[in-house]
Formats: sequence, structure tokens, C-alpha cells
Amino acid sequence: MKKLSESKTDLLQEIKAEAAELPQKKRRDFMLNGLKLTAGTALATAVGKVAAGQENLPPNIPAWSKTLGRGVVSVPYGLPSKHEADVVRRTVEWLTADEIASISMTPLHKQKGIITPSGLHFERYHGGVPEVNPDDHRLMINGLVERPLLLTMDDIMAFPSESHIHFLECPANGGMEWRGAQMEALQFTHGMISGSEWTGVMLSTILQEAGLKPGAKWVLAEGADAAGMTRSIPIDKALDDAMVVFAQNGEMLRPEQGYPVRLFTPGWEGNTSVKWLRRLEIGDKPWMHREETSKYTDLLADGKARKHSYVQEVNSVITSPCPESPAKRKGLMQLEGFAWSGRGKVSRVDISLDGGVSWKTAELKGLVLTKSMTRFSMEIDWQGEPLLLQSRAIDDTGYVQPTYAQLREARGTNSIYHKNAIHTWQLNTDGTVNNVQLG
Amino acid sequence: MKKLSESKTDLLQEIKAEAAELPQKKRRDFMLNGLKLTAGTALATAVGKVAAGQENLPPNIPAWSKTLGRGVVSVPYGLPSKHEADVVRRTVEWLTADEIASISMTPLHKQKGIITPSGLHFERYHGGVPEVNPDDHRLMINGLVERPLLLTMDDIMAFPSESHIHFLECPANGGMEWRGAQMEALQFTHGMISGSEWTGVMLSTILQEAGLKPGAKWVLAEGADAAGMTRSIPIDKALDDAMVVFAQNGEMLRPEQGYPVRLFTPGWEGNTSVKWLRRLEIGDKPWMHREETSKYTDLLADGKARKHSYVQEVNSVITSPCPESPAKRKGLMQLEGFAWSGRGKVSRVDISLDGGVSWKTAELKGLVLTKSMTRFSMEIDWQGEPLLLQSRAIDDTGYVQPTYAQLREARGTNSIYHKNAIHTWQLNTDGTVNNVQLG
Repeated sequence: MKKLSESKTDLLQEIKAEAAELPQKKRRDFMLNGLKLTAGTALATAVGKVAAGQENLPPNIPAWSKTLGRGVVSVPYGLPSKHEADVVRRTVEWLTADEIASISMTPLHKQKGIITPSGLHFERYHGGVPEVNPDDHRLMINGLVERPLLLTMDDIMAFPSESHIHFLECPANGGMEWRGAQMEALQFTHGMISGSEWTGVMLSTILQEAGLKPGAKWVLAEGADAAGMTRSIPIDKALDDAMVVFAQNGEMLRPEQGYPVRLFTPGWEGNTSVKWLRRLEIGDKPWMHREETSKYTDLLADGKARKHSYVQEVNSVITSPCPESPAKRKGLMQLEGFAWSGRGKVSRVDISLDGGVSWKTAELKGLVLTKSMTRFSMEIDWQGEPLLLQSRAIDDTGYVQPTYAQLREARGTNSIYHKNAIHTWQLNTDGTVNNVQLG
Repeated sequence: MKKLSESKTDLLQEIKAEAAELPQKKRRDFMLNGLKLTAGTALATAVGKVAAGQENLPPNIPAWSKTLGRGVVSVPYGLPSKHEADVVRRTVEWLTADEIASISMTPLHKQKGIITPSGLHFERYHGGVPEVNPDDHRLMINGLVERPLLLTMDDIMAFPSESHIHFLECPANGGMEWRGAQMEALQFTHGMISGSEWTGVMLSTILQEAGLKPGAKWVLAEGADAAGMTRSIPIDKALDDAMVVFAQNGEMLRPEQGYPVRLFTPGWEGNTSVKWLRRLEIGDKPWMHREETSKYTDLLADGKARKHSYVQEVNSVITSPCPESPAKRKGLMQLEGFAWSGRGKVSRVDISLDGGVSWKTAELKGLVLTKSMTRFSMEIDWQGEPLLLQSRAIDDTGYVQPTYAQLREARGTNSIYHKNAIHTWQLNTDGTVNNVQLG
């Protein structure tokens, strides 16, 4: 068995020699970087001071390998390591007048996989998070139905349930960028999206139980919070994939996600997934309440507003590198990111290193599910040259993520909703990343 | 629009009349149950005291609908509602000598969907949970390799990564039942399994980087905790789907799940997914250490022991109803449960209401993924008769979950590992559920 080299100098020469033997395959610079990172500490111990008979033990024996840790009783509900204390939701203080009607954003630069930890799911609410007692909560179904219902949580959970992995996104995601703001953090440019496994009852099942009357064309969803949030949902969506959801990622909803029950409209702007759901009224036309007229409409250049602009169109962003996760070394590098579409599955993601002049197709990784965050990646060999990194997603309806120029051509510059333009990160020679807007 | 009835008596008569009109379709007893549950409180208000002009408002306006809730700044990392405080991991005190080398179990009776919240993932460790500092942690690859590696966390995370949803199960799951113990809680009979989205590097990628030497047949995985847990893994598994995992459900591993890095061997007994991974040694034969000889072998009736019994064979359990989730009402009821197999996908689940005399095929719900928890359900019409509920899973290799008699015929009664026998819940007339063992 080949032993670790006896000195740091030997090790370096060994690595160089081995690298020379393998010209056809670029090796990752692990050992070289390892030396830089650990010189004088762990690795120095490893190469210089391994006692006889200890070659197969790890080079450093830290305190945690020598003392008993905590037991099973002390943490009945687990939490992240204290070393991950900076991985939290954050808000932009100037974005809203107060924190009761505000938004917090997911640390996407730290998200691995398509599930967002429920504790890090972005939040948006209009009157604060109410503390709902599930025993006292009721969901009323009224309006154009044969049998008005007043459901307890036990009632709701007695229906057949389904589980689906979907993203949830605020239509204001990226809105600050619309007119050229350049937030120097992925968490602020794209952090109003999260992904979860949602479990609940198909809304169609509940409406079938209530019995729709002739003329039933719209559903008003009403929240039980102080804001009494309301949105009008077309009956087609209600009978398609809308759900009355009580669980997220295997447990009951978190309070800020609508505990104990919310509406969930896959692929549609987040505010239509009304939280703390207390009432579904069936009617023959939209209600045109505040949150679908003065808010959550898209003011176009000619002064008209797009209303009922529900769908979150195809979008994508590179999450590594990004301003919070700069490039740490030259050589082989994984470009990583997420793509999603409110219309279906992501079918392809292209990546440009030169600000959109040329494109290569990235690899889609893991589960590619409808209306779900989808991982993509590409390995590049970066030698310190500045790059303009872009991703461009295409969904299975053929919709191609637009450039800023295309989006502005279609929508003007007034809106703060539904910004899905191609995003650009400038990777600098020193590995830092800046947010820049191109065309 | 049809209004809610003016009195409780009217409403009852209305419901009965409507039910009579729909003989072909059994209606759920929501309103009747709602009356029982809420008489004199919310519903009484709803049917008796709705003020003029208030017909479209929910019947009760609780405090949380009238006051502003908390804002976005106060909870940067979210937690469950205080009303879910009983949904926690639990241990059985007499099971182990102390809580440092013990196990805690997932509240499966509360799990909705195939993802277990990381905070509720079952725990098993042999020397407590170490507090590892990721900056100081190293992973050594040594033994029969061309290039010994000493990897930092940055090194590990620079490799191409993958995300996969898989279950993780302790081979002792259900072990207490092996010889006839009857724990009156699903959490204790089956709670040593959890499901997660795992993100990390394929072990094959790292071994390719290190370069296997001729004769490389086994990998020793060694943990950095005080127990220095070790297991020998055949090279075929290492090069197949084994991963070096750093994230779970979208964030870095929780400390009790191996933060900052663990091995993950999909479908294999949990202890082979060595946590706090500090070393992978490549060799030509298994090491036959303590945890694969005196422990984690299956003592057969003839005194011989099955060793390297890695795979968690196909298994299933009904999670609703169960002792902790009794039946709350007569009428239409959803039987719900999970099935899983360490060999691949669950292809079918059958349900018996009569202790295995007759079987019907259940519906598989949501994602059916390889080596993943899989939801199943069946709707039955329960009128209070006692039932003996069983589920029997079959995987895509054709393996059929055995009865207790079949398992004991093959393995005797000594073992405490790999108990995957068909489980029986006795549903009593009053809706309570007991654990009983049949054949």
C-alpha cells in the first residue's frame, strides 16, 4: 500500500509528477489547495508526524473524536449546526414600510437540492403571522354550491390526500432588478422562491363534496389573518391541480406558511396560495378585491394593467458561483443553478460564459418535476479569466426565458411583478462575483 | 345562492334529505361530525347568529383574525407551531444502557409525504453527537489508491454533486417486535426509518480521482465521532450508488445526521452510512471490525450468523389509523401508509382488513422512487366493525414482504435485525388501535 509522502515537498513533487502522467484528464487541485488551506496544521501533521503504526488513522484527532457527544434525549426536534448560523432568511429593510407586511428571502446560495428546508422557506404576509389554534380553525365552503360546508381540521384531513413537490414563488421575485437595481446578493435577486413537498387534499375533491352549482366560474380564497387576504381563482385552476394543503416537507405547515391550512396553486404567483385559509366562496365572476387590482397587476407602458397574471413563467439563475459564493480556486469548477416554470417541466437550460454571445446546454440533475425547482450544472475549466455567466431556461411548452430587452419590449418598465429575465453574474479574476445587467 | 340553514335542526334535516337524494354516492359525514365537534361554539354561531350582511364571513372571528401577527425579522429560521409540540423524536428508555449510545425514533404517525423533516429524522449513534467544526474537518482517502487524498469540505463540495430522495433505516427497526414484543405505538414499532433528499458527491467520483489500485475490493468507512464507527463496504456498492453526502433536505446535514459529511449507502442498513466521515480506506478484504461481527450480524437458529446483511428488504406499515392516530369517525376512511425497499422501487402494496385472509391492492401515491419511502392508501367504509389491518409490499425485484411465520422459518428468533414481517393493527369498535402479532 502506498503511504502518504514523508514531507510536504515530496508530496508536491509527487503530485506534479502524477499530474504529468495524466495529460489527457485534468485533475482537480485538491492536494495543492489542501496544502494551502492546511499548511502547518492538519496536513503538516499528516505528512510529517504520523507515528509508526498510525498511518491509517486520520492525521489530526480533534476534540470531538475524543469525547462523548450529546445523547438522543436532549434534542427531540433537531436544528442545524451552530456553524451554519449565517444560513437564514433575510429581508431588505427599505423594501417595505414595516416588517409586519413584508417579505423574507431564502438563502438560495446555500440551497442544495430541490427541497428548501421549511425553516428557510421565504415568507410574505400582509398582516403578520397569526397564531392559529387548529382546534378552533374552520374552513367554510359557500356560495354557488349545493351543500355549504364548515370543515374542521379533522374533516379536511379525513379526505384522500396527495403529496407533490412544487416550487412557490412571489411574483415580486427579482422585482427590484426590473428597473436596473443591482442587489449584490443572490438571496435578494432571486430569494423569493422555495421548493417543498406539499401534502393536502385536491381542491377538486372538496368542491365535488360541496357540489358546484351551474354558473360556478370563480373561487374566492380568503385568509384568516389580520389582513384577510383574498384572491379570485378561476374554476379551471381550482379543478385542475389546486390543493388545500396542511403539510409541508413531511410535517404540518409552519405558522408563516399558513398553519394549519392554506390554498396551494402550483406554478401560480404565491399570493394566490392564500395562507391560513378560512373560506372558499364559489361565484360567477372575479371579486376584483384590493390584492388583484391595486396590487398584483402589471402596469404596462401604455398605462393599462395586466390583471389575473397568475403564472410564474420560466426562469433560472446560477447559484454557484454568485456574490455570496465566490469562486475559491482555479481549475475545474461546477456551475450550479436552479430553473423552474409555472407551466410545466423545465426541458432545457443553456449556459453562457460570455454574456449571451454563445451558449452550451447544461445538465439537468436529479428529479425534473412539473412546476418544481430543477437543478442544472456544467463543469468548466476556469483559469481566472473574467466571465459573464448567464443561464437561460426553456420549458416543455417551448417558452424560452427572455432577455431584459425582450421583457421590457413586451412589458415596459413600470412593473415590479413577473420579472423572469436572463440574469448575469460577472465572475472577476479574483473569484468575486458581481451582479450586472445586460440587454 | 343557497344560504346556510337558519337552525341546527334545519341543517340536520337538510343534510339527511340531501343524503337521501344521493344514494349512489356515499357522502362524508362532515356536517354531522362538525355539529358534534362544534355544537354550542363556532357552528352554533354560524347557523344561529349570522348577522344580516355577514353571510359570507366565516362564522367565528377569532383573535388571530383581528390582531397583527409577528413580522419577518423575528424568526430568521422557522420552527413548527407551538400546537405541534408533541410531534417529536422519542426513545424507549429501556432499549439501551444510556442515551449516548442510543436511538430516537421518527413520529411516523404524523409524517405526511415522503420527506421526513430533518428535525424529526431518527437518530442512532454509538458515542453521542460530536460538534464537528467543518473548517477543521478532513476526509482522508488512503489504502489501495494511486493518489491518497486529504480533502477539506471545500474540496468535497467542489466535485460534481447529485441529489437523490432515499429512505434511511436502522436494521433494528422493528427489532423489539421480533420475538413478540408489542409496542403500542407506531413510532416505536417502525420509527427507525426516515426519508430525505440527500445531496453530495458520488463515491465513485472521488474514488476515480484517487485512482483504485489492482486488488481494490473493499472500502472501510470510518467516522470521526468518539465511537470511531467503522464499516466495510464492498467496492461494487461503492462504485454503484454510494454517496459522500453533505446536505439533507436542502441544507447542510444536521449534527445528528453526520454534519458536515457522511457516507450514504442507499437501501442499506443505516449504520453503513457512516456519519462524521473522516476516512475511506481501500483494501482487498473486509476488516471484520466490531460493528460487523459482534453487532449488525443476524444470529440464526443454528448458531451461525449472517454477516454483511446489508440490504433493508421490502417493508411496509399502515400509519393511519395506528395506536397514536385512532379512527375518529365511522364512514369513509383513508387507510394510509408507507412502503419501501432497499432493492429498488415498490411495485405494489396490498391491504388486508381481515388479518391476511383476503387482500386488495392499494393505490401508490405521489412519487414512486427507488429506495425511497412510498405512500400508499385505500379508502374503506368503516361502520365500527373490528378489523385486523395489514399491508404487504412487493418490490420491483418480485420480493414479497413475508409473514412472521415465514421470517421465523428462514431466520429463527434470535435476531434483532432486518425484521420486515407483515405488521398487524387491530382496529377496535371504538376506533382505538392495538398492536397484535399474527402468524
